[in-house]
Amino acid sequence: MPLSPEQQAEIDALRATPAPTLRAVAPGMERHLYVPQPVLDHGFVRVVDYMGDDAAICQAARVSYGKGTKSVQNDEGLIRYLMRHWHSTPFEMCEVKLHVKLPVFVARQWIRHRTANVNEYSARYSILDREFYIPAPEHINSQSKVNNQGRGELLSPEDSARVLEMLKADSTRAYDNYEAMIAEDGIGLARELARMNLPANVYTQWYWKVDLHNLFHFLRLRADAHAQYEIRVYAEEICKLVADWVPFAYRAFEDYRLGAVTLSAQMVEAMRRMLKGEEVTAENCGMSAREWREFMGVVDKS
Amino acid sequence: MPLSPEQQAEIDALRATPAPTLRAVAPGMERHLYVPQPVLDHGFVRVVDYMGDDAAICQAARVSYGKGTKSVQNDEGLIRYLMRHWHSTPFEMCEVKLHVKLPVFVARQWIRHRTANVNEYSARYSILDREFYIPAPEHINSQSKVNNQGRGELLSPEDSARVLEMLKADSTRAYDNYEAMIAEDGIGLARELARMNLPANVYTQWYWKVDLHNLFHFLRLRADAHAQYEIRVYAEEICKLVADWVPFAYRAFEDYRLGAVTLSAQMVEAMRRMLKGEEVTAENCGMSAREWREFMGVVDKS
Amino acid sequence: MPLSPEQQAEIDALRATPAPTLRAVAPGMERHLYVPQPVLDHGFVRVVDYMGDDAAICQAARVSYGKGTKSVQNDEGLIRYLMRHWHSTPFEMCEVKLHVKLPVFVARQWIRHRTANVNEYSARYSILDREFYIPAPEHINSQSKVNNQGRGELLSPEDSARVLEMLKADSTRAYDNYEAMIAEDGIGLARELARMNLPANVYTQWYWKVDLHNLFHFLRLRADAHAQYEIRVYAEEICKLVADWVPFAYRAFEDYRLGAVTLSAQMVEAMRRMLKGEEVTAENCGMSAREWREFMGVVDKS
Amino acid sequence: MPLSPEQQAEIDALRATPAPTLRAVAPGMERHLYVPQPVLDHGFVRVVDYMGDDAAICQAARVSYGKGTKSVQNDEGLIRYLMRHWHSTPFEMCEVKLHVKLPVFVARQWIRHRTANVNEYSARYSILDREFYIPAPEHINSQSKVNNQGRGELLSPEDSARVLEMLKADSTRAYDNYEAMIAEDGIGLARELARMNLPANVYTQWYWKVDLHNLFHFLRLRADAHAQYEIRVYAEEICKLVADWVPFAYRAFEDYRLGAVTLSAQMVEAMRRMLKGEEVTAENCGMSAREWREFMGVVDKS
Repeated sequence: MPLSPEQQAEIDALRATPAPTLRAVAPGMERHLYVPQPVLDHGFVRVVDYMGDDAAICQAARVSYGKGTKSVQNDEGLIRYLMRHWHSTPFEMCEVKLHVKLPVFVARQWIRHRTANVNEYSARYSILDREFYIPAPEHINSQSKVNNQGRGELLSPEDSARVLEMLKADSTRAYDNYEAMIAEDGIGLARELARMNLPANVYTQWYWKVDLHNLFHFLRLRADAHAQYEIRVYAEEICKLVADWVPFAYRAFEDYRLGAVTLSAQMVEAMRRMLKGEEVTAENCGMSAREWREFMGVVDKS
Repeated sequence: MPLSPEQQAEIDALRATPAPTLRAVAPGMERHLYVPQPVLDHGFVRVVDYMGDDAAICQAARVSYGKGTKSVQNDEGLIRYLMRHWHSTPFEMCEVKLHVKLPVFVARQWIRHRTANVNEYSARYSILDREFYIPAPEHINSQSKVNNQGRGELLSPEDSARVLEMLKADSTRAYDNYEAMIAEDGIGLARELARMNLPANVYTQWYWKVDLHNLFHFLRLRADAHAQYEIRVYAEEICKLVADWVPFAYRAFEDYRLGAVTLSAQMVEAMRRMLKGEEVTAENCGMSAREWREFMGVVDKS
Repeated sequence: MPLSPEQQAEIDALRATPAPTLRAVAPGMERHLYVPQPVLDHGFVRVVDYMGDDAAICQAARVSYGKGTKSVQNDEGLIRYLMRHWHSTPFEMCEVKLHVKLPVFVARQWIRHRTANVNEYSARYSILDREFYIPAPEHINSQSKVNNQGRGELLSPEDSARVLEMLKADSTRAYDNYEAMIAEDGIGLARELARMNLPANVYTQWYWKVDLHNLFHFLRLRADAHAQYEIRVYAEEICKLVADWVPFAYRAFEDYRLGAVTLSAQMVEAMRRMLKGEEVTAENCGMSAREWREFMGVVDKS
Repeated sequence: MPLSPEQQAEIDALRATPAPTLRAVAPGMERHLYVPQPVLDHGFVRVVDYMGDDAAICQAARVSYGKGTKSVQNDEGLIRYLMRHWHSTPFEMCEVKLHVKLPVFVARQWIRHRTANVNEYSARYSILDREFYIPAPEHINSQSKVNNQGRGELLSPEDSARVLEMLKADSTRAYDNYEAMIAEDGIGLARELARMNLPANVYTQWYWKVDLHNLFHFLRLRADAHAQYEIRVYAEEICKLVADWVPFAYRAFEDYRLGAVTLSAQMVEAMRRMLKGEEVTAENCGMSAREWREFMGVVDKS
């Protein structure tokens, strides 16, 4: 994630000039403002702006005039109650704006989350940099045998090396030709056409703005073990930022979403029978083989 | 719009304690924070939080690292260009959170704008106040003869007085019975049931959070002369807040949306013929009678 | 739910004239088309149009050219897998359009689900009917002592009668005055103003169009035991329609959403300890008192 | 756009089996169902399902029980009125589902329209075909000198040939290596990784479902002369489908959106002065140079 000296200077300038505000301020988030957190080989996530804090969630839930804290019912308790009972609108009252640099194939997964605002760097208007995601050898896996859309074991060092070679050579050649095509004193091809030659591991960047409820939804799916590694590392980095921004809400999210488990009607029934001492088996549980396997993972009687 | 002393104290406390932030600060908006702007007889609008400023729009449009201002192309020029050419996503990068107190029948129109976040005061959980919108005599009009969903002339003073009498009497009686029904040491009816007795001029309140693009869309429709007076006054109050918050964007909105006119294909054709000196009439213009009337309003050859 | 003879004739006419189509047809839904299902005292739900069926969900999940059924993996299995693993987009490929007549206070809860299309009967343009929701005595409850936004026990017959009397008298008087205010040969008040005198139990109606994923979300919240009775009966009626429309998807919804239970991280831990034979108590479980109570409801060791 | 014999057979089977329905049927759209309309060198658009017709727009606008046609006010007049006055919700009551095959760089522009439902072919799960968009020589232009995100003149035949050569060679090599990497009896790399080597001119496909209001918004921006050629051809093909589906609504869209012009407050003022015979010039018009140029294009006094 190499920032140019100019970029670093712009960031430093922004961090050097605090100004007074009457709005809610989240000290944990102020520390992160503008600072890029490196992700993958050339990517980053950085907070550009935010609105609200834990208290703002409570304030909206109570539609109150002031800060909203009441002595009887503390803020954390209220936040946990709201999260547990799927009252999502108070969490929508916090908003965050991120600047993200990421490979195009990650961006294509990310954009499927539609309830967010996006401004992407325009390759019709501007020239993309010569930056491509090349996975580290420890993340080059074979196609999974059990999960049709996941990764299995690591490739052998030889196969891994061949993959790296192909990715690097093709990226380089594609970018060389991209440059040749758009050269203003050369071919001068329209940028909106030339960009089509670039592979999906080229880096793009965007401003992405989302409310906390929808961000939690994104994080639940993308910080999950089943998410593709290359998007999961972004989600994990964002988790850290959110934990510093709204610590009560983040802890409730960990307990009631990230670390939670949903049991189907059949699983609830099976669990109850097991707790009563019955012998429940794949045969008498009323679940499919796949569901039973998932259930065994949950009860973990080891 | 009577605030209780406790509410006023809460607001004063919030305004008394500025804190440093590294985020973009809009001085024009800081002045308004938390202060209720009175609307109608008991309503108000007040800014509770905001994100971004004019520079943030440009920064997002350029996906830049710093503040985004370039010497060549000034910020206002860019903002006007974006507005004129319907590039809406950079305006989505600003966000505002309002606390609004409004009659239920206004709230029912307002909520039709779905691209916003809302937390409304819950009449299942809490007790509504004895506050009803009673229109001033100068806003009591007859049904329009020309526009089926608008107002015509003022009512006569006698009819106006009868209307006021009915509205006041029915509101009072409805609230008396609401109170009797929910009285904890009386009937004790569930609040979620008792609320059904209250008429649509009772006041409710909510936190409403929206991005600038969608807010402009709301304002274009609701600050329009055809909007119902009772929602228009809220829109007009919000217009003033936005003008102080993002002055460049607001001016562009005035020029390219509020004060702009859309000509149909037929109107463009008619205008061109008129500019060439042709005589264009209702008969030879290719428009319906209603469209021709609207077109005459636009060209205004008086 | 009294339909006028004209309305009934219009519905009969629509049901009398089938036409051939090449689109996916759901026989279970064709039976319901246009027929109002009564809800509450004057309300109804009726299907006006629909798009897709169970096969359409699979077809979209596979992005296939034809019907999408493959021999190996049957459609129901795929649908259950999609539901269990929160793959929501294939369910968005089915759409339904309902015509609903409902009290305004129910409409106000309903509209909070924003991901839907709505056209409501306009009381600015038209005149509302003299129809009010008056609850049956067996649904007139006191405010709950344990749940601040729910109902407790039934009222005494005397209190119940007083409530009914107030609701009826106030509705009648409000409508009488509404009529007097808008009378064209009388006061002639603008309809957009007169409507404010009507209480929240007056009936309105709308066309509501929603995709199956968002409909399931609505049903999960509103067919739930904690939802207010007056909206729950609408949700339950819609559940029956959906069960006939997309039987595989509906069954998956029952098993993985309606009948499912989400366990927090703490609850999962407690369950595992219990299954290993440990004694887990309110004191050593790491949950709040309220959470523990909820957990006891789930494990149901009775 | 080569369909395999199996695909063609699946489509033929669907078209061969009409079934009776009580829903609204649009004969103009039935003709198009399932049939792929070729776009670009390997792409297509085909209608997979639709909901509603012109009458359904009126029915929703009137919230009526039957078909909604009233003798006095004909359907087309109502539709034109709704379109002219930005009443968008009745148009949301029609829905269409398309199956589209398109290059990835087009898909990336397209997906920016968020108010739609999408299921894309998964390159984590499946293998992409060896199909790449290679522009025809008559669409290979230089970067525009006047519009920073558009195309200028055609390239010389020599430069054009060089571009084609590079695009073809790089696509071929990238796909060869993609195949080598995922070969099940070879390297066996996970598909979610291998896909990153494919350039943005590779074809993908998706099911895209959208309501008519949002579709019109998409078409207004993407069938516009300023849209990139490669997405415009898709928009133009969809325009033809919509014209056959809802002819009244489409004609209103042409007159009030596609062929319409929005004049800024300054332009309205200038037009009025011109119609009164005043000499209005770039100097005395109160517009920027760029706006004046745009205005001259509108008034077209030639």
